[in-house]
Amino acid sequence: MALKEIINMDEVLEQIRLELSAGNWDAVTSLLETLRRSDQAEVFSDLPPEQQQEILPLMDPVNSADILEELEDEEVLEIANRMETDRLVEIVDEMEPDEAADLLGDIPAEQAEAVLQRIDESDEVRSLLEHPDETAGGVMTSMDVHILADMTVDETIQHLRGLSPDSETIYYLFVEDKAGHLVGVVSLRDLVVAKPSTIIRDIMDDDPIYIQVGADQEEASRLMFRYDLLALPVVDANRKLVGMITYDDLLDVLEEEATEDIYRLGGVPKEQPADVALSSAIKTRLPWLILNLVTALLSATVLSVFEDTIAQVAVLAAFFPIVAGVSGSAATQALTVTVRGLALGDIAPKEGFKTLGRELLLGLVNGVSIGIIVALIAFVWKGTPLLGLVVGAATLLNMVCAGLAGVVVPMLMQKLNFDPALASPILVTTTTDTLGYLFYLGLATLLIASLV
Amino acid sequence: MALKEIINMDEVLEQIRLELSAGNWDAVTSLLETLRRSDQAEVFSDLPPEQQQEILPLMDPVNSADILEELEDEEVLEIANRMETDRLVEIVDEMEPDEAADLLGDIPAEQAEAVLQRIDESDEVRSLLEHPDETAGGVMTSMDVHILADMTVDETIQHLRGLSPDSETIYYLFVEDKAGHLVGVVSLRDLVVAKPSTIIRDIMDDDPIYIQVGADQEEASRLMFRYDLLALPVVDANRKLVGMITYDDLLDVLEEEATEDIYRLGGVPKEQPADVALSSAIKTRLPWLILNLVTALLSATVLSVFEDTIAQVAVLAAFFPIVAGVSGSAATQALTVTVRGLALGDIAPKEGFKTLGRELLLGLVNGVSIGIIVALIAFVWKGTPLLGLVVGAATLLNMVCAGLAGVVVPMLMQKLNFDPALASPILVTTTTDTLGYLFYLGLATLLIASLV
Repeated sequence: MALKEIINMDEVLEQIRLELSAGNWDAVTSLLETLRRSDQAEVFSDLPPEQQQEILPLMDPVNSADILEELEDEEVLEIANRMETDRLVEIVDEMEPDEAADLLGDIPAEQAEAVLQRIDESDEVRSLLEHPDETAGGVMTSMDVHILADMTVDETIQHLRGLSPDSETIYYLFVEDKAGHLVGVVSLRDLVVAKPSTIIRDIMDDDPIYIQVGADQEEASRLMFRYDLLALPVVDANRKLVGMITYDDLLDVLEEEATEDIYRLGGVPKEQPADVALSSAIKTRLPWLILNLVTALLSATVLSVFEDTIAQVAVLAAFFPIVAGVSGSAATQALTVTVRGLALGDIAPKEGFKTLGRELLLGLVNGVSIGIIVALIAFVWKGTPLLGLVVGAATLLNMVCAGLAGVVVPMLMQKLNFDPALASPILVTTTTDTLGYLFYLGLATLLIASLV
Repeated sequence: MALKEIINMDEVLEQIRLELSAGNWDAVTSLLETLRRSDQAEVFSDLPPEQQQEILPLMDPVNSADILEELEDEEVLEIANRMETDRLVEIVDEMEPDEAADLLGDIPAEQAEAVLQRIDESDEVRSLLEHPDETAGGVMTSMDVHILADMTVDETIQHLRGLSPDSETIYYLFVEDKAGHLVGVVSLRDLVVAKPSTIIRDIMDDDPIYIQVGADQEEASRLMFRYDLLALPVVDANRKLVGMITYDDLLDVLEEEATEDIYRLGGVPKEQPADVALSSAIKTRLPWLILNLVTALLSATVLSVFEDTIAQVAVLAAFFPIVAGVSGSAATQALTVTVRGLALGDIAPKEGFKTLGRELLLGLVNGVSIGIIVALIAFVWKGTPLLGLVVGAATLLNMVCAGLAGVVVPMLMQKLNFDPALASPILVTTTTDTLGYLFYLGLATLLIASLV
């Protein structure tokens, strides 16, 4: 629990609130500076904007940089917008190049350019800014350590001593030849336990896993996850080392991807924090509901076609939620398992038919079970054996189709190079709604003479 | 892309298939041993059980241990069941203590005891076995390095040289006092760049983040994620160091938790691989469908109550999927955002009313928009302005309730100490189904004279 931390933090928060209400900005600042950087950012982002603006100039640039690195993009943008360029230059100078590039990529181009012209590591940051956001290049940080294969362990350690104490790039050392091509990797651990006179070439792994600068960030996170890597070297087309993706970036990508899948499966096509502005929430969610409305017209049409049957046997309507709804849930189950299986690589694309066969069989077994229960309910409730039979048979048929839809829709999405998670329940439940009404009312119409 | 890796692996796979069909087990074994451990495990787990059984005894224990560490629990159990104890002892001896404990915890107690009596690190493994699976103690590994605060950097490095080259426990060194209490942490990086004569106490961080051995593994992963930790020390009630949770375990926990949320939101209460046995899949999914069936009876009852209205104005039925379905999707959206917000800590428990207010407002705005579109569709399609009004008004009302249900159900779940993700769409869509029919048919019944 790190109980001590949490208790400390609560106390500090209480104190900060007291000092804030008294307007003691300096006291607030020094209290903030006693916190860890993630906690600093959290406390800071909970403050109202006007207080943030009072406090930030009072903190030293290192702490300000820490806070800005931890905040959400939107918050940073807002703060940077209100800040003078001089101050921003001081802060950006304290950031890791990848974080600096992220920040400058988010603020207006003019302000970014003004900052870029005056920071120390402007070349590194500029080259990072060239890569699209969701690629390996977009999440990597530049290398500030260059190890050659013919250096000794001792020379390497001397070299490391010269680096900034905050350097991220040090648990794995990527080894280059004189032209800058990636030729190996040596872990800091191997370095520590080796004799000082050992040549790096003799302790390095000469077949390191790497990624191309233009590859998708998801590909990078999958490699790092698969091989438990703390850092992944990024190379250009000539296998020259251009940067590295570190562990903390991997964690962020993994969480982003999981959230994206959860959101898309829930019919929210674009990830956003729970407290996003109302207008953004509407822009994301309303179009999806309208799409749902359009697809719902399909089942509405089926119901409209069978209007006469419903008018004659209105008791049929009572079982709509069962015939359509339960199958819709079964389809969502199949969809969930398929989408997650595809995302985790448990289902290979060529195993589609195996998965389909499984879900069809499952739909059949579950369909027979649910079909029998539903038939019994209909019989006992309404006292008509034939109605029970119709309800049960339609449910069974629809459950099998639910398995089919739950597998085929996401697989098709992937085949067409869309994210399978976009095949949200909205699409598969429309299928089960439509088919459910079709089977149910179709059967009822055929047997209408005996049902009236 | 690590293109080279992937191409190599495809070639190796092809060769392995060739050698397998020729029955050249030794060739298969040496080919497998050229692969990285994650790849070895993947190729191995794709082989049929009889081939696995031929190959495993031919591989050396280190490689066998690597493969078993990477396989799924169920696969390991199957293999261990068929293996002789002698062989199992050899393999377990090559495993990290945490992996060994995981394996022994999964096999029959009798076989586990037989192995425990003969392995080298039996004390460490035994004490790890005592902790429940989902606690910090259950995922931690034991410490095989003990650093005291008054050692010098040079002494520490000498000490590290004596460790097994595979030791996981080395990127952070946790520092103890003579009685074994956790007093600090020093990173390997700080160690490398420090002068050899420096005392550890002078370079260590004396306020390390730690976790109690009985805390939930999710709590541990949240701390590591929040503070970007590569390792988290685990302490007992007296703050004595008992183990550590490493980076690779964190990744596994994070992925497990994301998958669990996705499954639960999709109405699959228990996570299982996409290719789980049919009987397990039925056992997990059928009860949930039956629960759904029971809740669907609620909306069935509403429909049944309004049977007369439906018989008189059968055209009403055409709009069921719209009034109920679109609101169901809106409820799922609200649910998804709330559940993920709670999981990521974006929504604090006390911010419930703020979230509720937001979603109600969103429901109102989306409800007015969708309500107007739906009213227009009903009017144009069926030519009855009053029908359009009834459909539109019911949709609007139901959309607001959807926002309410999507927030209140998961919040209530959390209040009652259930996982909010268990508030799957099944529960909230039942609410929107029932209320949708109630509003819609209730309004229609009030206005029946003008609708017929």
